[in-house]
Formats: sequence, structure tokens, C-alpha cells
Amino acid sequence: MARRIELDGRQRIGAMSTASGTRTFAASDPATGEALEPRFHEATAKEVGQAVDLAAQAFDAYRRTSPERIAAFLEAIAEGILELGDQLLERAAAETGLPQARLSAERTRTASQARLFAALAREGSWIDARIDRAQPARQPSPRPDIRRMLIPIGPVAVFGASNFPLAISVAGTDTVSALTAGSPVVAKAHPAHPGTCELLAGAILGAAARTGLPDGVFSLVQGAGHDVGLALAKHPRTRAVAFTGSLQGGRGLFAAAAARPDPIPVYAEMGSVNPVFLLPGALEERGERIAEGFVGSLTLGVGQFCTNPGMVVGPSGAALERFVAAAGQRVSACPPGTMLHAGIRAAYEAGVERTARSSGVRVAARSAAGPDPKKTQAACVLFATDAAALLADPDLAQENFGPSSIVVRCASGEEMERVAESLDGHLTATIHGTPEDLARHRRLVEVLERKAGRLIFNGFPTGVEVCHAMHHGGPYPATTHSGFTSIGTAAVYRFVRPVCYQDFPQDALPEALRDGNPRKIWRLVEGQLTRD
Amino acid sequence: MARRIELDGRQRIGAMSTASGTRTFAASDPATGEALEPRFHEATAKEVGQAVDLAAQAFDAYRRTSPERIAAFLEAIAEGILELGDQLLERAAAETGLPQARLSAERTRTASQARLFAALAREGSWIDARIDRAQPARQPSPRPDIRRMLIPIGPVAVFGASNFPLAISVAGTDTVSALTAGSPVVAKAHPAHPGTCELLAGAILGAAARTGLPDGVFSLVQGAGHDVGLALAKHPRTRAVAFTGSLQGGRGLFAAAAARPDPIPVYAEMGSVNPVFLLPGALEERGERIAEGFVGSLTLGVGQFCTNPGMVVGPSGAALERFVAAAGQRVSACPPGTMLHAGIRAAYEAGVERTARSSGVRVAARSAAGPDPKKTQAACVLFATDAAALLADPDLAQENFGPSSIVVRCASGEEMERVAESLDGHLTATIHGTPEDLARHRRLVEVLERKAGRLIFNGFPTGVEVCHAMHHGGPYPATTHSGFTSIGTAAVYRFVRPVCYQDFPQDALPEALRDGNPRKIWRLVEGQLTRD
Repeated sequence: MARRIELDGRQRIGAMSTASGTRTFAASDPATGEALEPRFHEATAKEVGQAVDLAAQAFDAYRRTSPERIAAFLEAIAEGILELGDQLLERAAAETGLPQARLSAERTRTASQARLFAALAREGSWIDARIDRAQPARQPSPRPDIRRMLIPIGPVAVFGASNFPLAISVAGTDTVSALTAGSPVVAKAHPAHPGTCELLAGAILGAAARTGLPDGVFSLVQGAGHDVGLALAKHPRTRAVAFTGSLQGGRGLFAAAAARPDPIPVYAEMGSVNPVFLLPGALEERGERIAEGFVGSLTLGVGQFCTNPGMVVGPSGAALERFVAAAGQRVSACPPGTMLHAGIRAAYEAGVERTARSSGVRVAARSAAGPDPKKTQAACVLFATDAAALLADPDLAQENFGPSSIVVRCASGEEMERVAESLDGHLTATIHGTPEDLARHRRLVEVLERKAGRLIFNGFPTGVEVCHAMHHGGPYPATTHSGFTSIGTAAVYRFVRPVCYQDFPQDALPEALRDGNPRKIWRLVEGQLTRD
Repeated sequence: MARRIELDGRQRIGAMSTASGTRTFAASDPATGEALEPRFHEATAKEVGQAVDLAAQAFDAYRRTSPERIAAFLEAIAEGILELGDQLLERAAAETGLPQARLSAERTRTASQARLFAALAREGSWIDARIDRAQPARQPSPRPDIRRMLIPIGPVAVFGASNFPLAISVAGTDTVSALTAGSPVVAKAHPAHPGTCELLAGAILGAAARTGLPDGVFSLVQGAGHDVGLALAKHPRTRAVAFTGSLQGGRGLFAAAAARPDPIPVYAEMGSVNPVFLLPGALEERGERIAEGFVGSLTLGVGQFCTNPGMVVGPSGAALERFVAAAGQRVSACPPGTMLHAGIRAAYEAGVERTARSSGVRVAARSAAGPDPKKTQAACVLFATDAAALLADPDLAQENFGPSSIVVRCASGEEMERVAESLDGHLTATIHGTPEDLARHRRLVEVLERKAGRLIFNGFPTGVEVCHAMHHGGPYPATTHSGFTSIGTAAVYRFVRPVCYQDFPQDALPEALRDGNPRKIWRLVEGQLTRD
């Protein structure tokens, strides 16, 4: 039986807890509207500074920590999260309105992704060691000995997402990938689930203490508004920002970081519309089955996924109408659900209204039962329009976070391509087709490769696998840098930079770059990958 | 005998040459001040747009080009550069004042770096293919098949450097690495060597035609001011910027790109001070020999290297004074040299005057012969100061592009660390020491790892090896993104992004991701590197 933890609403500046500020705020249960105990102290600018300074002080010691100990730290984080037991699930459910079963699955993912990064750290080849040996006899001038590897960049500010209070929050993918890299983390608690964040911070700090890591390798600051986050992003010793959330929030941090005397990278994942393309063969063959899967994906978690399918593009005709009818039936039957918080619900409702007012758009279906605003509920809505109307009103192609989607009828395959070409960047794009469809629409795939980070065939975009090959990113506005992923082991590359050692003596080189390859990692030696 | 090419001063919009604008400018020979024929037409906004649009149109075809053909293209570029023969060296010498022997060596490097990238393209493993196979029986939910690789991002705007008219200009490291990635290039000619740029563009376009590549894979635009460059960076279809030059120029492009509706990455290499640390043992043992190498590095190319050693930090005492005396002697004996252009000379002279005026700084030595302004000449200058004065005047730690350097006397090893800690980001940092010195100053190395992209032991920073392990980058202000290099094969990673294919049928996958590994590249399969 897990020990019950008394939440105190204070900052965690490494091992120290502080509450210097006078501004406080409370979380509330979106399902009831009730405020939840305790009140949380918003961090002062001074507390933010202390957290980043402590992270910077811990940095040199932390980056010298052996991969084995970093792996042990990550595994201890996984254990610590599980040890929080039901209290974590209960608090997260109260703060987010998400069902405990979903949160329990998310907890499993959170622990296993920490363990996956532990395995990455232990194996060690991710640091991309490269060795080009000296050629003293080379003409016209000798070649020096050049050895390169990735090293951590320093303190990282992490801003978690409201919709994944465990897997993409304080102890989520950003934190564990930064810690794997050897970069200390200062996490900004999400103001909608501050108690969950405090619990998770306790698990990380406990793991750091048990593993004997330097104080400051992790800190947590609380804040309800933008001040704390901006102070974090602007602090001279912050070296990068990882963010998952709204376009507005991500772009704000990006602009602040770009305007610094020394700009720092902001890796913001800001969601997307995740268009789904229905090709004629598949639509004819199994349109109704696709409709079933589509509405399941659309309504999962009350539509609150970055990968929620917000647009369906298909060839107009009887098969597409059957798809709309089948999807519409399921949408009507879908009960309204409690959203994460009142702000998200209000934005969703406004988005639905805006879309409904656009000329050439009709509501194809809506949850039959009315949503209860006191329970922060939202209805599922399916819109229908045609390509001309979509191309005439770019707002229709913008994300509306929640369970709404728009079906776009196209007169031809070329028009489907034109719609694809008109899209901004997205995290995902999905194609339903037969093998023949795919062969006939190669050009559409080519366009979508330019538009999205992940292309899905005959599936649905929700459900992001945490693995080596995952790419959870995409061209702007899906993210602020299309070269990086926030999920999967490649997420570690956001928090490192190469450093090169020229003519260093063996014993002054990092172990990973020494002759004899003591860490037995894969290295690029004279351009050849080898473990020797 | 190479055919002599008549320069026409026009844009190269793919295979088409245009001169719509009325503004023209001419290059001049810095050694004589004479204007060089012909006059060059500044590109209009419309011509810039045409070049980028053509690049975007060529993109889908170019990125489907086989690695073998891309390799052939890069090799044809190398040949094309060599085929320009003496005309290239003569024109470059006239436009830059650099000696032909140096330009000849630079031409060799330019051709061999194109061939190195050809080899990278042909081998193919750089695309970082990753495969995590489906697990249909996994509980609680099946795992889809996930495959990921790097794909090119699209049109890249290249801004070459004044100081490497061949190796870091129109046909230099940025262009060949972008072309390797599969990204078309629109190069902005450097206004100080526009004729050299036109010749190089001809070589690239000839190579593209010979290899049968789509029109638009490369274009060149001319421009004397900032307008053309800003138009390139702001064009909606430009996907990234590569720049080598001044802090002001790089930061300007960075700000313009960050303010776009859709921000794009700017990879700017903006030079640095490249501090050299002299440790006591080495200074005692061979201070005068170090002085010889140091002045050689300082005065190479009239100090016009991004990696020029602009600061020397050492322990005060008799050994350091002997070093200063020996270096001073060589500086006095160093004749003034012709700089790249009058603007660089004026900035250098202003920087020298500013440093000389700073309290606590004295001129330790200066070229005995006076520089001739009509020949755009600059004298070599060695300053001396102490750590307190340096820390009191941050301007002293800023780059002054040209052959000046400042010796900083420190009272102790701790003070040397404090000086290191006070530094901004640099491309390189150098340490001269005995093995015992190095063991005793591990902490200094740790600090420098945080400050520089390349650490050099008992050598000098000028001379950047083009190889797999090279990292030519560093924390801001050395570059705008410390995670990327502009020299060496890893430079290709600036122009790509990952894309992930979920549950795609084999024949719809890119060849590199298919079962059976038809391209025989290294891939990360289930987290294990393999060629099977």
C-alpha cells in the first residue's frame, strides 16, 4: 500500500521546497467545477532563477554521470511513479476529468518510456561517436586526430501538456529524454493539474536522491499565468525549451527565446488537424468500417489528442455519403464528455461555432445528448463541406482541439491533391486505400510527405507508439522545428550538441571516444560504423 | 585548356539567365581598389521569387532522385569546378585579394568535399533508417509497423562567406550538403566576389544538366545590399537558410526567419574569438615555439578566418612574458596584408582602435610596416591585458575579424577558469599543455566543453578538416543552433527532417525502408544497428 502524500503547493528547487510568492491558485475538478485542495504558490521570478541556477550548478556533475547511473535514475523514476499508487491516478482524474482506466494505461506508458530511455542510455550508441584518426604523413599537410560525440546542452525548461498529465507532463517524454541526454530539467507544472505535477516531481526527486545525483538535476515550479513560463524561457542559463500545447503558447515561447540576447531552441509540439484521406477503392469496399474506426479515434479522450483526426478528405459520391451517414450515426450516439478544463471547452465551443457559420459548411451530425457546461462537457460534432469552401476559408483547416472533424468532398483525385497541397504542416496524415488506390495516388503520398511527420496507412492517427522509429513532429505549425521528435527515443537529440576533440591524449578523452572502445558502442570510425 | 567564360552579371534562375532589375553593382580588386568588369544586376524581388518557386517545383522530382545520381551530380560539380581552370583562380584572386596558391588549395578542398558528400550519398546510411516491426499480438493493443527515415526539407537559401570564396561559397559546404540531402539550393552570391559566384554557378548548372536533374535544383541570385537576402529568407517556399558571415548578418536573417508566419531554421555560422589557453608546463617548456605557431595561425589569410585565434589566456609570469616577446617579434615582422574588402578593413581598424582605448590594455606589438589603405591593407596587432580588465570590459572578448589578438594574463589557474567561464560561445577553444597540465586543469576542459564546438590540444584552430568527425559550430554567438555543423559530412543534417511510415505496404515504402534492405544500408531495426 502506497504511502499517502500530503500536497503542499510549494516549488521544488531541487531538494528544497519553497513558497516565497504571495500569489496562489487552485486546480479544479472539471467534472464538478469544484476547487481542489491545496492552493499552489506561484513561483516568483527569484524562485525560477534559483531553480535554473541550481540546474546549471548541477550540470557539470550530472553530465559526467555514468550511463549506468543515468539508466538507474530513469528506472528509479519509473518505479517512483508506480509507487505513487492510486493517489496519482485519483489526483490526475480529479484534475483532468480523464477516466482512471485511461490514466492507468498512461501511467504504464510513462513508466515504460522512462525504462526505454534507460535502455538507450545503457546501450550508449545514441551519442553518435565519430573518429577520424590522424594522418601525420598526409600531403600537403598532416591530418589531425578528430573525434566527435554528442554532449548535453545544459538546463532544459519543460512545459507539459494538459492532455497527457503523466506521459507528456512533469515526468513525461520531455523530462526523461532530457535527463537521458545529461541535461538537468526545470519543469513548469501545468496549471490545470498542479497536484499531479507535484506528485510526479516527488517521484523524480526521490529517484535522484536514491541514485545519488547532484541536487538541482530536477526542479519544479508552479504558475497559473504566463509569467513563470516566460521567466524560465528567458533565464540566461536555460539552454532549451520543450513544450507541448497550443499554437499560441508554443509560438509565444518561441518568440521570447528567439528575441533573447542569445537565442535558444524551443521545441514546441503544438498539435495539428491530422487529415485523413479516403481513397475510392477503400471507401467503396469498407467505408462503414472506416467510419467506425474514425469516430472511435475522433472521440477518444473527448477528442483531446494532438493527433485527433480533425479532417476527412474523400471523393464525392455515394460511397462518401454512406461514410458520412455511418460516421454521423456514431457521432449522434456519442455522449458529451468532460473536457480537461473550462478554457479548453470554451475554445472548442467557439471553434465549433466559427466553423458552423462558415458558408458552405453544414453540421452533418452532433451528439444527440446536450453537453452539461457544469460538467465542462462538450459534444462531438461532424461537419461537411466541399473542397472549394475549404480552400476559400483557411480557418476551416485550422485545428479545433476537441471532438470535431470536417468531411471535405472532392470532385476528383486531383482536387484531393489540391486540398493536400493547401494544408499547413501536421503531425500526421492518414490514407485509407487498397493497394491499387495507393499505386494510383502516389502523387498524393508525395504531397503528404511534405506536409506531415507521420503517414499512416489504413489506421488512425491517435495512439503514438513509443519506440525508436517513432516520429512525433512535423512542419510548422505542428512544431517549431520539423527536424525533431518529442516522442520515441530520438527525442533525446533535442537536448544535445556535438563537440569535437582534436589531438587529445587518450586519457583526456571521454571514455566513449577512446581507442579500444571501452563502452563497446557503435562508432563511425573513418566513415565506417563499427563496434571494434 | 579551359574555355574562357564571358561573365554576364545576370541571375541564374535554373537554366534561364535574367536581368530584370535596374540596380547594378561591380566588384573591386581590394589590392588596387579598381572596379572589375562586368557590372552585376541585383535580383528583383520577382526574380528571387522565381528562383525559389522553381526550386520548389523541382523538389519532388529531385528528392526522388537515386542516391547514385545525386552522387554523380556532386562529382560532376567537383569536375566542373576544376574545369573552370585558371579563370576561377584569377577571378577569385582579383575579387578577394587572396593569393592564388591559397585559392588553389581551397579549390582542391572544394572539389574534394563535393566528392566526400558524393560518397556519403552513395553509401546511404546517413538517412538514419529505423524500423520497429508490427506486433499484432501485443497486449493490451497491437503495435503497428513503424518505419522512419530522414527526408529533405525543401529549398534552402545559401549565403556564402567572403573569406572562403570557393569552399564556403556558392559551390561550397552549404550547397553540396543541401544537394546531398535532396534539397534544392538558391544561392545568394556574395557581393564581394560576384564573378567567382557566377563561375561556380555555371559549374553547378552544367553538372545538373549533364546529370539530367530537374531545372531549378540550383539557382543563383545577385545582390549588393540586404534586400535580396531578406527576400530569400522570407520567401514562403524557402525551408531553411545556411549562412556564414558576420554576427550582425546572421542575427538579422535569424530574426527575419523567426518572425515569418511559419518560422524556418537559420543555420548561421558567425565566427568567434577562438581562445587559446596556455598551461604552465607547456608555456615553460616551449612557449617560444607556441608563439611561432600562434602568430602563423593569427596571420594566416590576413587573420580572416572564423577560427582565427583572437585571444590567448595564460598564467602571468616570466614564461608568459617570454611568449609575448616572441610573439610580438613575429607580429612586428609580419607585413600588412590586403583584406577581403574595404568594409572588412574599416571594421577591423575600428575594432583595433576600440581595443587600444580600453583601460588596462596595451599594444604589445604591431606590424612594423604601415598598412597601405589603397591596397586595403591591415596591420597585425597583438594586445596585452589582464583578467580583471577583460572581465571589466566585455567588448574585449568580442571578435574583431582580422589579424589581431589579445593576451590575457591570469594570476592563477582559477582565474583562467573564471576567464573561460566568462566567455560566450565559440567555434573552437585551444589548450596548450603537457599531459600533467591537462590532468591538473580538467576543470578548465570541462568549462571549455560548454563554451566551444571544437577543443584543440597542442595545435591551432585555423584549418578545419573536412571529415565525418568534424564539428564546425558552437554555442551562440558562434552559431544560431549549436546542434549543427556547417563543415564535415554531418552538415547534411541541417537540411532534413524525419518522416515516419505506419503500416505502409512494402511497395509503397521508400526503398531504404523495405524488408530485405535493398540498399544495404545500416538501419536501426528494433533498436539494433544492422545491415541485414
